[in-house]
Amino acid sequence: MRDADDQQETTRLPKRGKYLKYYLAGFADGEGSFSVSIKRLRTARYGWVIDPVFQVYQHKDNKCVLEIFRDTLRCGYIRPKSPKSDVLVLIVDNRRWLMEKIIPFFDEYSIISQKREDYEKFREILVRMERKEHHTREGFLKIVKIALTMNKNGKQRKYKLNDILSGMK
Amino acid sequence: MRDADDQQETTRLPKRGKYLKYYLAGFADGEGSFSVSIKRLRTARYGWVIDPVFQVYQHKDNKCVLEIFRDTLRCGYIRPKSPKSDVLVLIVDNRRWLMEKIIPFFDEYSIISQKREDYEKFREILVRMERKEHHTREGFLKIVKIALTMNKNGKQRKYKLNDILSGMK
Repeated sequence: MRDADDQQETTRLPKRGKYLKYYLAGFADGEGSFSVSIKRLRTARYGWVIDPVFQVYQHKDNKCVLEIFRDTLRCGYIRPKSPKSDVLVLIVDNRRWLMEKIIPFFDEYSIISQKREDYEKFREILVRMERKEHHTREGFLKIVKIALTMNKNGKQRKYKLNDILSGMK
Repeated sequence: MRDADDQQETTRLPKRGKYLKYYLAGFADGEGSFSVSIKRLRTARYGWVIDPVFQVYQHKDNKCVLEIFRDTLRCGYIRPKSPKSDVLVLIVDNRRWLMEKIIPFFDEYSIISQKREDYEKFREILVRMERKEHHTREGFLKIVKIALTMNKNGKQRKYKLNDILSGMK
């Protein structure tokens, strides 16, 4: 993993790390997303898994910003959005990374826009999972319900609450 | 025009103005554009006008970020992208504003991504126009040629160089 400082010559990074972090927070406000997927997995405790992920999108021409983001956060990996897409995504989907890198970052460098509400729900879900609340049926459902209110009440979600309830073990 | 400080209670603005400016620069790196339109105007000196504009796009739900941007830059106005669009645009199209507000801002809070190349061409065009170079045929064409290399060589442009040349008075 390259250090952000290595890129000083080719990109005009702010000299103070804190400035760069505000810059990246602003960038994430526009191009990032905090989301929590509920995925079918018949072998899981309740038949579903809860999958929090932080993503930042960008055209491949601007890959450098995603690399600087990854190197500053010291976590995540970069992939094409889909096999033939020109859009890249920085993905942080590991719960340890999310708790230890993403949450402290955005707690300090707060999102300004309405996306902050999604961030706060994202954070609450991660904290509840850290406490293993999703290992009880009640805690699991509480988290699912919070997740379903995220990102404009999940208009693009594959599964609605009723699908999840009826698919629960 | 509201002062950015007024919004402290509803949005979590960084306490130091400089941090906010880095945040906004990062936001503009993702959601902003520097462009120079070449528009048909038969009454203009050469039959065309050169029209530099800085824009930042955002869904209307996040209007607050555009307002903070406008209030921080102390210029620009916010409009829907099109009459029925849910997308808003902060527009700075006044050359005085561009020279006195936008250029000093992005000279200090530099764009990191490839979009910086567009910014630098945008800046060069504004400086040339400030020197009235577009008042000579040679200077006018030089600016047009720079403009046509911007934003991925202007794939979405209505007029190509040949159209402009053949439409010149």
